[in-house]
Amino acid sequence: MQASNSSSEDQKFLVRRLQISDKSKGFIELLRQLTVCDSVSDNDFEDRFHEISSLGAYHVICVIEDESSGKIIATGSVFIENKFLRNCGKVGHIEDVVVDSNARGMQLGKKVIAFLTDHARSMGCYKVILDCSLENRAFYEKCGFKQKEIQMVKYFV
Amino acid sequence: MQASNSSSEDQKFLVRRLQISDKSKGFIELLRQLTVCDSVSDNDFEDRFHEISSLGAYHVICVIEDESSGKIIATGSVFIENKFLRNCGKVGHIEDVVVDSNARGMQLGKKVIAFLTDHARSMGCYKVILDCSLENRAFYEKCGFKQKEIQMVKYFV
Repeated sequence: MQASNSSSEDQKFLVRRLQISDKSKGFIELLRQLTVCDSVSDNDFEDRFHEISSLGAYHVICVIEDESSGKIIATGSVFIENKFLRNCGKVGHIEDVVVDSNARGMQLGKKVIAFLTDHARSMGCYKVILDCSLENRAFYEKCGFKQKEIQMVKYFV
Repeated sequence: MQASNSSSEDQKFLVRRLQISDKSKGFIELLRQLTVCDSVSDNDFEDRFHEISSLGAYHVICVIEDESSGKIIATGSVFIENKFLRNCGKVGHIEDVVVDSNARGMQLGKKVIAFLTDHARSMGCYKVILDCSLENRAFYEKCGFKQKEIQMVKYFV
């Protein structure tokens, strides 16, 4: 046997970019585990999908699909910000990372973060950042992140 | 007299979008007060300027010019992130806010934040966020922001 258990697990839970067809695979329902997200019409979904896709490698949303159930069970996104500082540097911003509550403990979050972090590095970023709750700090520390600043927010609605 | 002192101050310190000619007005030197920023060649500056400008209202860098000295004395940026969550919502990300150390105490930081925040609101964002050090929390609270999460970072260089 050439394939170990872990590599067959890796093959089962591949990280890939979001596709339009993922809407019917529970992508919006998964986001709902993170924050408010009402039903999104097919048209609105496609419009937003194309807006994001138009940025190419500058805004990447990835997903993990459970091949056995056909459901999206993990996702995360990263967009690349062009700066002038740091000698016209780039920064990767990771957003909207969520793993299905029924799929925790399988290292899927780590896979998503590794995918997004690798993408930011490949785009030439000098760093990648994200905001999270205090309770998620330990998870991101395991992913190689360190706490640095605080996040401030102003809501309009 | 129709103009009060405060309104003539307002006229003196207008917030406007970054222009290519601002490189020769000390824009890079101002960023250097924030973090590492070596000299940037005219070509590199123009390339980065056009990359950012190509995003139109989705990535706005603003500046305040001191008309008497011809120097850029404050800046900040905001880019708009398209999301699926929050019913295909948008979030404004404020970055790289700095006021010249010789121009503090004139409310220029507040002006920059108001400009960027108003832009995010006009773009339909449901919130605007930024990361800052603990020591700058009080300033952003005066601008109407509240502390929410923590920022995690991973450096590649």
